[in-house]
Amino acid sequence: MATTEEVTAFISAELPQTKCVVREVGNGGATVSREIGPSDLRPGGTVSGPVLVGVADVALYVALLGEIGIVPLAVTTSLTINFLRKPAANKSIIGVCKLLKVGKVLAVGEVSLYSEGTSEPVAHVVGTYSIPPRAPATAVVAR
Amino acid sequence: MATTEEVTAFISAELPQTKCVVREVGNGGATVSREIGPSDLRPGGTVSGPVLVGVADVALYVALLGEIGIVPLAVTTSLTINFLRKPAANKSIIGVCKLLKVGKVLAVGEVSLYSEGTSEPVAHVVGTYSIPPRAPATAVVAR
Amino acid sequence: MATTEEVTAFISAELPQTKCVVREVGNGGATVSREIGPSDLRPGGTVSGPVLVGVADVALYVALLGEIGIVPLAVTTSLTINFLRKPAANKSIIGVCKLLKVGKVLAVGEVSLYSEGTSEPVAHVVGTYSIPPRAPATAVVAR
Amino acid sequence: MATTEEVTAFISAELPQTKCVVREVGNGGATVSREIGPSDLRPGGTVSGPVLVGVADVALYVALLGEIGIVPLAVTTSLTINFLRKPAANKSIIGVCKLLKVGKVLAVGEVSLYSEGTSEPVAHVVGTYSIPPRAPATAVVAR
Repeated sequence: MATTEEVTAFISAELPQTKCVVREVGNGGATVSREIGPSDLRPGGTVSGPVLVGVADVALYVALLGEIGIVPLAVTTSLTINFLRKPAANKSIIGVCKLLKVGKVLAVGEVSLYSEGTSEPVAHVVGTYSIPPRAPATAVVAR
Repeated sequence: MATTEEVTAFISAELPQTKCVVREVGNGGATVSREIGPSDLRPGGTVSGPVLVGVADVALYVALLGEIGIVPLAVTTSLTINFLRKPAANKSIIGVCKLLKVGKVLAVGEVSLYSEGTSEPVAHVVGTYSIPPRAPATAVVAR
Repeated sequence: MATTEEVTAFISAELPQTKCVVREVGNGGATVSREIGPSDLRPGGTVSGPVLVGVADVALYVALLGEIGIVPLAVTTSLTINFLRKPAANKSIIGVCKLLKVGKVLAVGEVSLYSEGTSEPVAHVVGTYSIPPRAPATAVVAR
Repeated sequence: MATTEEVTAFISAELPQTKCVVREVGNGGATVSREIGPSDLRPGGTVSGPVLVGVADVALYVALLGEIGIVPLAVTTSLTINFLRKPAANKSIIGVCKLLKVGKVLAVGEVSLYSEGTSEPVAHVVGTYSIPPRAPATAVVAR
């Protein structure tokens, strides 16, 4: 398990270019936020799909790190996004992740994405992470 | 909107061979259950994937009917299932659906599937329904 | 790797109740077929979604066995289906699987489903299988 | 239907900030490419997931425009991505889209994503677009 502070420090170090901020980690979930600027918009003033995917991916990663500790090699293996409503152009996107399963090799979670201050999600994501095998102590020494 | 009784009657008439029972409909969601028998199992005693998909699909349909009224032509357009834990061989499968969006032409919902009496889901589904265009004004009057 | 005959024998033994028949295995793919009867239909004469999911799941499993050999513990971890066209009520469903990746712990494949004799797919599936760790030789002996 | 030139001109006008280049449109599909730079990478030298999603989304949109003509209001409704292999850090990403269905209200397509010059896909996407109702001629005049 890792605290919000540990996860925040790790995300800052490992994903220095991310615009996502960790708000909360724990209890099998996480909340992250990301400010939206002009370069994140599509014509018509909607937030681009890849930006939403990026927020969901970080929310999943953060929730997983909170649960299993700092495991830098966990990688996304699949992700399904449903776009539900037009996001506001001038509000942060909030990603609220709830882990559905954390197994030995796979973790699955869902993320609801909101324009800050609204209660109906703009998109919903289900994603899967692959967790690298944890080496037993002697094997780590042997490496 | 349709009540639990109206939806139950409709499901019995339209899907006479379904083994799913409607437990509750309303508030943008639904709960259905399905008894599991030997023919629903795979070797190893796990409930087959298609059975789980079937329960989720009915839960989505029931929740949607509860929201938009009896619309027999709504059809599933896509469905994503993540298998999370081994279901019990001798317990009913419970599907709890929450609609994420009900638009004019598309509805999206998620379903958590449980072995009855357990609190961790055995599978999670996100599905999309296509809603047929509502009849023009004269037909509406006819209702 | 396993031949069509080996996979057919294994499927008959492990999934005795399946209605799917293996037509071809190899080259990173597989073709299976399944006869459709009255109990597989939904009102309106369309093949039920769970039946289509079942055919796709077997096609993926068969293709995977063809590639990695007979590994009975491989299990589906996720599956996404898009329903494209109404299947014929009186034609077999053909599932044509192409594996996209066979890794050490995960395999991913896509399946196009057809009503026999037609060239446009009735549904498209992407599915993921989890592959159990292969025991080293001594461990196999120990079993 | 729209030609490669028409689609290219439209994409340049509607998505001026996209880094995707249309290579080919037609026959129910499309090929797009996108150069990869340092800001597109994640630690470890892999192309970030949202960049891959973005290429797939443009490939789907371009293929759809090629098929139904210039319809600016088509929007992505869902997208499933499976990450298959680590993309090269210094090669363009190529997205090859094949439409599976173009209906009146929904289109479905799949996209294989490659690092340029390699034959095994780095990711696979299935996406759905919602097509706005085409206004009859008089209604267009009335607008």
